[in-house]
Amino acid sequence: MSKYSAIESYLKEFLGDEVHKSGIKNVVIGLSGGIDSAVVAVLLQKVFGEHFLAVKMPTRYSSKSSLQDAEELIKKFNIRSETVSVDPYIDSYLGINGKTTDLRVGNFSARVRMATLFDISARERALVIGTSNKSELLLGYGTLFGDLASAINPIGDMYKSDIFEFAKYLGVPDSIINKPPSADLYEGQSDEDDLGYSYEELDSVMKLYVEDRLNRVQILNRGVSPELIDMIISRMYNNHFKRKMPIVAKLTDRTVGHDFLYARDVKE
Amino acid sequence: MSKYSAIESYLKEFLGDEVHKSGIKNVVIGLSGGIDSAVVAVLLQKVFGEHFLAVKMPTRYSSKSSLQDAEELIKKFNIRSETVSVDPYIDSYLGINGKTTDLRVGNFSARVRMATLFDISARERALVIGTSNKSELLLGYGTLFGDLASAINPIGDMYKSDIFEFAKYLGVPDSIINKPPSADLYEGQSDEDDLGYSYEELDSVMKLYVEDRLNRVQILNRGVSPELIDMIISRMYNNHFKRKMPIVAKLTDRTVGHDFLYARDVKE
Repeated sequence: MSKYSAIESYLKEFLGDEVHKSGIKNVVIGLSGGIDSAVVAVLLQKVFGEHFLAVKMPTRYSSKSSLQDAEELIKKFNIRSETVSVDPYIDSYLGINGKTTDLRVGNFSARVRMATLFDISARERALVIGTSNKSELLLGYGTLFGDLASAINPIGDMYKSDIFEFAKYLGVPDSIINKPPSADLYEGQSDEDDLGYSYEELDSVMKLYVEDRLNRVQILNRGVSPELIDMIISRMYNNHFKRKMPIVAKLTDRTVGHDFLYARDVKE
Repeated sequence: MSKYSAIESYLKEFLGDEVHKSGIKNVVIGLSGGIDSAVVAVLLQKVFGEHFLAVKMPTRYSSKSSLQDAEELIKKFNIRSETVSVDPYIDSYLGINGKTTDLRVGNFSARVRMATLFDISARERALVIGTSNKSELLLGYGTLFGDLASAINPIGDMYKSDIFEFAKYLGVPDSIINKPPSADLYEGQSDEDDLGYSYEELDSVMKLYVEDRLNRVQILNRGVSPELIDMIISRMYNNHFKRKMPIVAKLTDRTVGHDFLYARDVKE
């Protein structure tokens, strides 16, 4: 059994188990046309079939190819889907605020998509499945309470460069695998331009730091540039708040997030 | 020194410290006109003064008295504030979906308020301070990724019935203290109608269960009705997911939320 065949089996079992424990039968995701949500969609289709709904939420800033790519995936894997434009919300935002910055409009779009997806999940009695990969989670390259919001995330421990391999294994269409990764929050956005390095470079250094626990000096001795390692370390620490619940001031003996701690699916 | 004077000092120090550690100088909250955000606003005004901004985000479903109550607090404590209507977003939602349910419209409103408040926090280079109390957190009476979303929450470990006392101590206007608690998400909504019991009843039983660690039978023996204790236990467990980050499928040695665990404000 190949590595990715084992991972596929494990993730299908993980998804089935975790959703079953919640008592909920249906699942939804936001399908962007990018590789991460494509990989999750294929897994969900295999596990949940008709109980899975993929929601496309384009804005005027989405590239046309994104919707076409999403459509190709939907046809190939026979995925139940619907499309909800979030442009009316962006129009309201621009009407209230005027043009702010690409980053602010992008984060607002990501949060309105979250609100839309969770609303659809209430209609469908479904859990929202997350599609953020490990590279994004570690670098904090995502919108808190936006695309980072979900109930269960099957790919949050897989680096982006491994997602490409997994996507090939799963039969995700080449058009999705071969295009440059983009959050698609504004025109011409590219992850690798935003971050300044390719995912291959970023992941190879993050694996040394996070998985192999090498320190900065040891990594420099491997020939990695100080700019790259320092950018990664700084992003990892500065964005740690995106991986944690809000801090609650402790006033009693048993405080949420301090010592009132149970597994997410604890039962009485 | 009275109990509430000690709590005030502690919470002021907590807020000052936690915000300082983040490296950010400013704070924002959503000010609803209710007692929770009023208490947090008074604390923030005392610690941050001009570096604190209260944002009122009414919808057509907000009661008129809420805005007036917020205004009275702002005047009494000389709080910097602004008002942003979120009605255009609700209009877009109703245009896209038609009338759904009070709960879905309410959750969507809470999430659009979150998106608005975080957008303003980006403009102000500010942290979003949370205003959910312990009763709401334990009962899951709040919108995940909506009003439950924040960076730091000073009152998340204080039961609602104690918030009333603390608000009196802080000089919050009587109009805010004496009205029935309401999430104000739709007309005539009342927390105590939604939950079926007064906060005094709920809190007294939650304190036996959570703080004193009595079990169900011991609590029944104190004369509490089975309906009340069962409702509380069931809400507490069924809503635990609102107090936890998404579950990530474990694929490597160091996984976000499993064994890649640091304090929220960890530095290298």
